[in-house]
Amino acid sequence: MAIHLGANQYGKAENRVVRIYRDTPRHQIRDLNVSTALRGNFEDAHTTGDQSDVLPTDTQKNTAFAFAKEKGIGAIEDYALTLGARFLDASPAAEGARIEVEEYAWERIQVDGQDHDHSFVRTGGGVRNTVVNVEGRGAERKSYVVSGISDLVVLKSTGSEFHGFLKDEYTTLPETNDRILATSLVARWRYDHTEVDWDKSYDEIKGLLLSRFATIHSLALQQTLYGMGEAVLEQHPEVAEIKFSAPNKHHFLVDLSPFGVENPGEVFIAADRPYGLIEATVTRDDASDAGSAWHATPGFC
Amino acid sequence: MAIHLGANQYGKAENRVVRIYRDTPRHQIRDLNVSTALRGNFEDAHTTGDQSDVLPTDTQKNTAFAFAKEKGIGAIEDYALTLGARFLDASPAAEGARIEVEEYAWERIQVDGQDHDHSFVRTGGGVRNTVVNVEGRGAERKSYVVSGISDLVVLKSTGSEFHGFLKDEYTTLPETNDRILATSLVARWRYDHTEVDWDKSYDEIKGLLLSRFATIHSLALQQTLYGMGEAVLEQHPEVAEIKFSAPNKHHFLVDLSPFGVENPGEVFIAADRPYGLIEATVTRDDASDAGSAWHATPGFC
Amino acid sequence: MAIHLGANQYGKAENRVVRIYRDTPRHQIRDLNVSTALRGNFEDAHTTGDQSDVLPTDTQKNTAFAFAKEKGIGAIEDYALTLGARFLDASPAAEGARIEVEEYAWERIQVDGQDHDHSFVRTGGGVRNTVVNVEGRGAERKSYVVSGISDLVVLKSTGSEFHGFLKDEYTTLPETNDRILATSLVARWRYDHTEVDWDKSYDEIKGLLLSRFATIHSLALQQTLYGMGEAVLEQHPEVAEIKFSAPNKHHFLVDLSPFGVENPGEVFIAADRPYGLIEATVTRDDASDAGSAWHATPGFC
Amino acid sequence: MAIHLGANQYGKAENRVVRIYRDTPRHQIRDLNVSTALRGNFEDAHTTGDQSDVLPTDTQKNTAFAFAKEKGIGAIEDYALTLGARFLDASPAAEGARIEVEEYAWERIQVDGQDHDHSFVRTGGGVRNTVVNVEGRGAERKSYVVSGISDLVVLKSTGSEFHGFLKDEYTTLPETNDRILATSLVARWRYDHTEVDWDKSYDEIKGLLLSRFATIHSLALQQTLYGMGEAVLEQHPEVAEIKFSAPNKHHFLVDLSPFGVENPGEVFIAADRPYGLIEATVTRDDASDAGSAWHATPGFC
Repeated sequence: MAIHLGANQYGKAENRVVRIYRDTPRHQIRDLNVSTALRGNFEDAHTTGDQSDVLPTDTQKNTAFAFAKEKGIGAIEDYALTLGARFLDASPAAEGARIEVEEYAWERIQVDGQDHDHSFVRTGGGVRNTVVNVEGRGAERKSYVVSGISDLVVLKSTGSEFHGFLKDEYTTLPETNDRILATSLVARWRYDHTEVDWDKSYDEIKGLLLSRFATIHSLALQQTLYGMGEAVLEQHPEVAEIKFSAPNKHHFLVDLSPFGVENPGEVFIAADRPYGLIEATVTRDDASDAGSAWHATPGFC
Repeated sequence: MAIHLGANQYGKAENRVVRIYRDTPRHQIRDLNVSTALRGNFEDAHTTGDQSDVLPTDTQKNTAFAFAKEKGIGAIEDYALTLGARFLDASPAAEGARIEVEEYAWERIQVDGQDHDHSFVRTGGGVRNTVVNVEGRGAERKSYVVSGISDLVVLKSTGSEFHGFLKDEYTTLPETNDRILATSLVARWRYDHTEVDWDKSYDEIKGLLLSRFATIHSLALQQTLYGMGEAVLEQHPEVAEIKFSAPNKHHFLVDLSPFGVENPGEVFIAADRPYGLIEATVTRDDASDAGSAWHATPGFC
Repeated sequence: MAIHLGANQYGKAENRVVRIYRDTPRHQIRDLNVSTALRGNFEDAHTTGDQSDVLPTDTQKNTAFAFAKEKGIGAIEDYALTLGARFLDASPAAEGARIEVEEYAWERIQVDGQDHDHSFVRTGGGVRNTVVNVEGRGAERKSYVVSGISDLVVLKSTGSEFHGFLKDEYTTLPETNDRILATSLVARWRYDHTEVDWDKSYDEIKGLLLSRFATIHSLALQQTLYGMGEAVLEQHPEVAEIKFSAPNKHHFLVDLSPFGVENPGEVFIAADRPYGLIEATVTRDDASDAGSAWHATPGFC
Repeated sequence: MAIHLGANQYGKAENRVVRIYRDTPRHQIRDLNVSTALRGNFEDAHTTGDQSDVLPTDTQKNTAFAFAKEKGIGAIEDYALTLGARFLDASPAAEGARIEVEEYAWERIQVDGQDHDHSFVRTGGGVRNTVVNVEGRGAERKSYVVSGISDLVVLKSTGSEFHGFLKDEYTTLPETNDRILATSLVARWRYDHTEVDWDKSYDEIKGLLLSRFATIHSLALQQTLYGMGEAVLEQHPEVAEIKFSAPNKHHFLVDLSPFGVENPGEVFIAADRPYGLIEATVTRDDASDAGSAWHATPGFC
């Protein structure tokens, strides 16, 4: 019986890189969580303990911080692409590099109705992220960019139905024509190429996801997600496909009848667990090959 | 040797009450986390297991949901005061009721530049809360209101120094004239009475905390907090005292010199643990007696 | 109108101190989370920003790590007492020091039925902790020790009833003679003095809490907690009082009747929120004065 | 441009199923977290909102609870296989079912040196889990079982080196011949077939992972993981491959030299972020085809 090393990957996860731009009195902040990983021909490191092919995870960390200054941090996609290319160049045994970046959003604090120059408050409304995979050398170099948003908590208080579903002997759910629909949306979209105005694309897609969530009359969370994805693909030719992972955050109507109180869709209990979990992909018929774009992306591979 | 029951309290924690106002097509949402508790003469429940004085926590939960409809939810302080009074009335053995409410903020989703009628996105920027204690019966009834904000994450990228501190043989910290100052602020202020426009007071105090954080040139987090509290007391006569609990979320300057790169206050690593923790009270000389206002408020008693 | 600084405290929280004893091939590990704080006359630090009385939180951190080597770590109570005394001595403006230590438990890994010398696996079954407050100088020095356990998750599948409770118009809870009783226990006991064999006392009290939970036929969680506390006080003269904070982790019987299936106390859903929360103190009639023993202990003050 | 639905899956996540066996006075408890999902031809649900092919997630929940009684819960693998087959049978449009189960371990409470009949304390030492995928109908039915353990926190205080690694201009890490090695292990192994004594296999594999972690002299976490996996494959012919995801939980030696104190590998600070993250697969040369075994398993696909 013979045994061998299969798929593998190693790197430094969750480097909390904070970059301040302070060339003028009006500072800017980029607040990132950066995870990097290399994969490839690392048999010796595993089987004999010989680390001569292994660029330490500590070096990956150092590079992530040094590049924040040397290369700067514009769009997180550009920063991730630069890091991925660097790691492949610095690690001859590596076949691929995976760079994941989350960006936390800050707004300027208001003082007397004006934005302050160097004071900020963290905002909610979703966390922007990207996953970049870089593979190959020289003319074979390929780069894949999947960007997205997580923790986008949305709710509509009407305009959501759920009925006409399949029933079996374990089905007790009543049909409804009016319920609360709420989710903590995770969306990730794969770009067809890297010639993209990343910030503009992200802002528009986020806006589109929100407005479609609001305006689609929902017959199921599946149908809402599909409509959201369809709109993104229709209006964003740079996007090849989009994937969603959306917990159905149940809001159960509370029965107030024991107290002689009617409750026509007004008082709900927000439940924690269990929750529905809807995952869906919306894609173009002629989408480019995904290659390693979705490599090791939790919940999306 | 005799043994007896000391301080005690029981209730239902973290009722996730969601109230939709839908009388017009333009819905409103109040999204709360409600914890209620009673304290008093509950010896029998503990020593003999006789529950005849105990209003079940399940009943407390039912009341929190029923009142969301029967009484409605305006300012969380009013809702909490109403619940507290109710529980004292319904429970003859109780001497005090403690009601804690957190409110999660939602904004309307934008569709074509307009606020949508019934679709919302959860925002960040702090969680509003209140702790209400109600005691006594009839003419002896007293109500205490402590309101506050948590999870208000703020950062300033300059305008913060730390030097001139006490040194002993374990001191290695260099002095600095320019550092990042960041915290996840928890502030709680005790109202002097209950004749308050709660929403207006909260909005103004939150704005004041933010603007003072921005404009105070900081010599230490202690000094920043004191200045923030002082401003609140100066401008809000309805506030008797204010307490802060503020982790000093360290951002360490990264040493890039091994790579021949200068780092003049531009690249930082945001650390998790350990963190400084600064707790302070700012109070009026003539503040009213706190009574049970701070009863069982974690970190503030 | 005059404003002044009230109660205050500052320190370094959550120092993750790991101490290995390796004087022989059979290593030992102490794995701690240490939080330290000073309180006292720190007006200048707050009002003028003058830090000359402030021993930096960074120095507190350094001391916690240095003492792990210089003084060693035996029982966490001794380590905390030593740190508290040190900080008071090093900080003339301080009136009190508060040291909180959590200890994570490890067991030796079994290899061929033998305990390994230097390999360990983290166990559950509760986290031991202590809160030590030290005050005063010279002959006035007082030290208070409150030790405890958290995250002790226990459940009994029968032997628990709940009935005969007070009812009002919002009461719908059915009475029951057989339910699951489960909690994630937090217990903290105040020692009457510091002449205690800390490890022995902790081990015996933990064992007693568990065995009493098991053997008390429960008429309510309140009664179970009281009985547990009473046993501790009866058998441990070194303990002045004991406090509990115990969520009633509800396990609801699932209604399987729609599927023609009986469910005589066999299938439950474990709920997250809301949960009952029972807090109680059991004390001696002649308990010593608590002084600052419970100072700033979340949930217990 | 045409757009279509791609990969999709829906179900009910995190059903907290607790099953008590109480046929004799000596009760038994199975405490599970169950997530179920269906995938297949659900285009209509997404594109037109027609739910006639959709077995509600609520029904999946009901079935998970009902089967806990009707079928009982033995090994979690058997329970998951039964649920998966049921859902495929009940849902004609489904092509595959994915069932994930975590099991929380409880020990009997000791009373006077004896195991109590119906009182339990939750233990640590890792969470057992399984992911079962069932596909096809009739003779085409295939079932895949991947079982594993998570949250297995292990540490060795010596016997770990790291040197001889690749260096570039961003490398500053010193080489070491003696460091702490610690991880919170996640391991998942794919069974070659379903004719397995699940409990016995799990217990032995867990024991083997622990003992190999202890006894392998480590030259890198990669090499330790490989050795652990190799041992499992050598001794467990029922296992086709095993995958690891292991954070390198860094313990940094604290520099006590500023205080004139030596620190020969005795005092460490346990860091939170960043952490190394090592992922590796160990597989047989003649492993069976994985099919959908790793479908949607976060971190392992």
